[in-house]
Amino acid sequence: MKMVCSKQALVNGVNIVSKAIPARTSMSILECILIFASNDSIKLIANDMELGIETTIDGDVNDPGTIALDAKIFGDIVKRLPDGPITIESDENLKAKITCLKAKFNLPGRSGDDFSYLPNIERYDYITISQYTLKEIIRQTVFSISENENNKLMTGELFEINDDKLRVASLDGHRISIRNIELRHKYEPRKVVVPGKTLIEISKILSGEVEKEVNIFFMENYVIFEFDRTVVVSRVIEGEYFDIDQMMSGDTDIKVLVNRKDLLSSIERSTLLVKEGDKKPVIIGIEDERMELKINSTIGSMTEELSIEKEGDDLLIGFNPRFMIDALRAVDDEMVSMYFMTSRSPCIIRDDKGKYIYLILPINFKTVQ
Amino acid sequence: MKMVCSKQALVNGVNIVSKAIPARTSMSILECILIFASNDSIKLIANDMELGIETTIDGDVNDPGTIALDAKIFGDIVKRLPDGPITIESDENLKAKITCLKAKFNLPGRSGDDFSYLPNIERYDYITISQYTLKEIIRQTVFSISENENNKLMTGELFEINDDKLRVASLDGHRISIRNIELRHKYEPRKVVVPGKTLIEISKILSGEVEKEVNIFFMENYVIFEFDRTVVVSRVIEGEYFDIDQMMSGDTDIKVLVNRKDLLSSIERSTLLVKEGDKKPVIIGIEDERMELKINSTIGSMTEELSIEKEGDDLLIGFNPRFMIDALRAVDDEMVSMYFMTSRSPCIIRDDKGKYIYLILPINFKTVQ
Repeated sequence: MKMVCSKQALVNGVNIVSKAIPARTSMSILECILIFASNDSIKLIANDMELGIETTIDGDVNDPGTIALDAKIFGDIVKRLPDGPITIESDENLKAKITCLKAKFNLPGRSGDDFSYLPNIERYDYITISQYTLKEIIRQTVFSISENENNKLMTGELFEINDDKLRVASLDGHRISIRNIELRHKYEPRKVVVPGKTLIEISKILSGEVEKEVNIFFMENYVIFEFDRTVVVSRVIEGEYFDIDQMMSGDTDIKVLVNRKDLLSSIERSTLLVKEGDKKPVIIGIEDERMELKINSTIGSMTEELSIEKEGDDLLIGFNPRFMIDALRAVDDEMVSMYFMTSRSPCIIRDDKGKYIYLILPINFKTVQ
Repeated sequence: MKMVCSKQALVNGVNIVSKAIPARTSMSILECILIFASNDSIKLIANDMELGIETTIDGDVNDPGTIALDAKIFGDIVKRLPDGPITIESDENLKAKITCLKAKFNLPGRSGDDFSYLPNIERYDYITISQYTLKEIIRQTVFSISENENNKLMTGELFEINDDKLRVASLDGHRISIRNIELRHKYEPRKVVVPGKTLIEISKILSGEVEKEVNIFFMENYVIFEFDRTVVVSRVIEGEYFDIDQMMSGDTDIKVLVNRKDLLSSIERSTLLVKEGDKKPVIIGIEDERMELKINSTIGSMTEELSIEKEGDDLLIGFNPRFMIDALRAVDDEMVSMYFMTSRSPCIIRDDKGKYIYLILPINFKTVQ
């Protein structure tokens, strides 16, 4: 195999596919990037069996072939090479020679035969959205997936399509995040749970431009994201996702309208008094025209007042401040509407157009305190 | 005690004095910042007994007094307060109340009586240099202090004054870094070893402007740096520093002139093949007009060629690449002169004007390889 490409093309490509390199694995081939040089293209591929990424880079192939190289070492070397054309050659002993101007590196490689390629895309069943939209909905929902692997479904996000509506949801047992997006076309109903890890990695690769698109393909056990010159293949999480609509169905007689940034800053300040791992709730007192936030810990105490508009009864309710912060950061609106019922029923933050819904369960602060 | 100041003034002041807060200590008073509010000034002070910092901030004092507050918590709160005037009050029970607009924090404080104040400055024996110069010489020498406390003198830097010359030097047993600075005036001879930790923290506080000055005061057991509205007091390290001149006195018959950035990039690249903790040398082959760098490790191998000008014999010599990188980064010149004698004698990087000298001992690569 022998190929030449620019440093920039190679650095970009390696950055993209490295997102599918596992942090720890006992199978060293999974730590490799495969260089697949054919007559008409140069592809870089990484695949940890759950998540696989392939990207095409510009360059010239003098001698088609494949070689798998340790992603970390290869990536570090490529980044540090001078700005110039990079030549990569490999021989029948799988020795790779990387040359750039007067610098020469020799690295042991592995055979492409050991490598797991990505499945072929079946090109019929897919939806198209903008890179911007996908990147935003991931940011706005991915924080409430569960890190606990005991309930696998909670580690993923629901992508649910009905006609021209896409609903993306995540939940971790304490809160639910939902985003609704209007699609440009109508599609067959679809329900798939995408691993949170996949979405986090995709979000790092997406340029996030409004004019650029992503095709999302649905296959038997995979979901595939195709954008720019990159293909991301991810296993889906199997099983029936939770009945979110039923969880959202409770009454909410109290409505509060509050400035989002003021509330967010105030709750962020309150967390300064909470040691990590400590479960101190922030206590929110809701009265006519004013909201009072209080936190009390071994470190000290804080109180702060905010102006609000309110409908319904007064209420005193406690929350994990972290959950409130996550939800309020995911919203862009200047003013947010918060809905409550009792001190034991959830708070729901949602807009009138139904673009977003964040549900947060309260903490029974009377027993905690 | 009651005082009012702007958020910005308090944030800046806390940032400065926090550099003297120890990372770990069993004495909780050392983790505190003392607020010293008198009729004519507000001072913040932190002092871990080795290093003490005092800075003056603008504000109004309604009721003079002192209170010591946990630096970490107080600092975090101050940073997160809204932009507005901050009021700090304390009562006879040492409870501190911090108010900013509608946010109120209550924190337990400690008495100023428990706190160690800084020694008074004796104002007669000092030198003056620019902040820029001090910040630069610290950056250019501090990397070669030793982290090993076994030889206390090696953890500091020599500041040696003779007439209008200041020499700053550090060494760790493998290398020596020396910077010579011309002072604007002549001073009495002085020799003092300043802890590296002090210099690292000062360097973070110094704005580094050419027009701003630093006064450095020499006292019996202390060295004091005074700049802007800040005073840094540090214990000095006692004992007779090493005889550097004697260490520098060997012959150097081989002289090489090389592009600094090219050599630096090449050695940086070579370290990609060295695992942390591994002692692989970079081997430098010096011939007429060319230098060849080689490294060989379990990961792979690298060779690279550089154009040089050379006087004297050919030479093959090995170095810890880290030491070469540190020295080459500390120099600003486009071309550097390197002096050698044999493969067992040190490499000396120095300029003709005697502004800088970096000595690096070689590694006997024949036994290592």
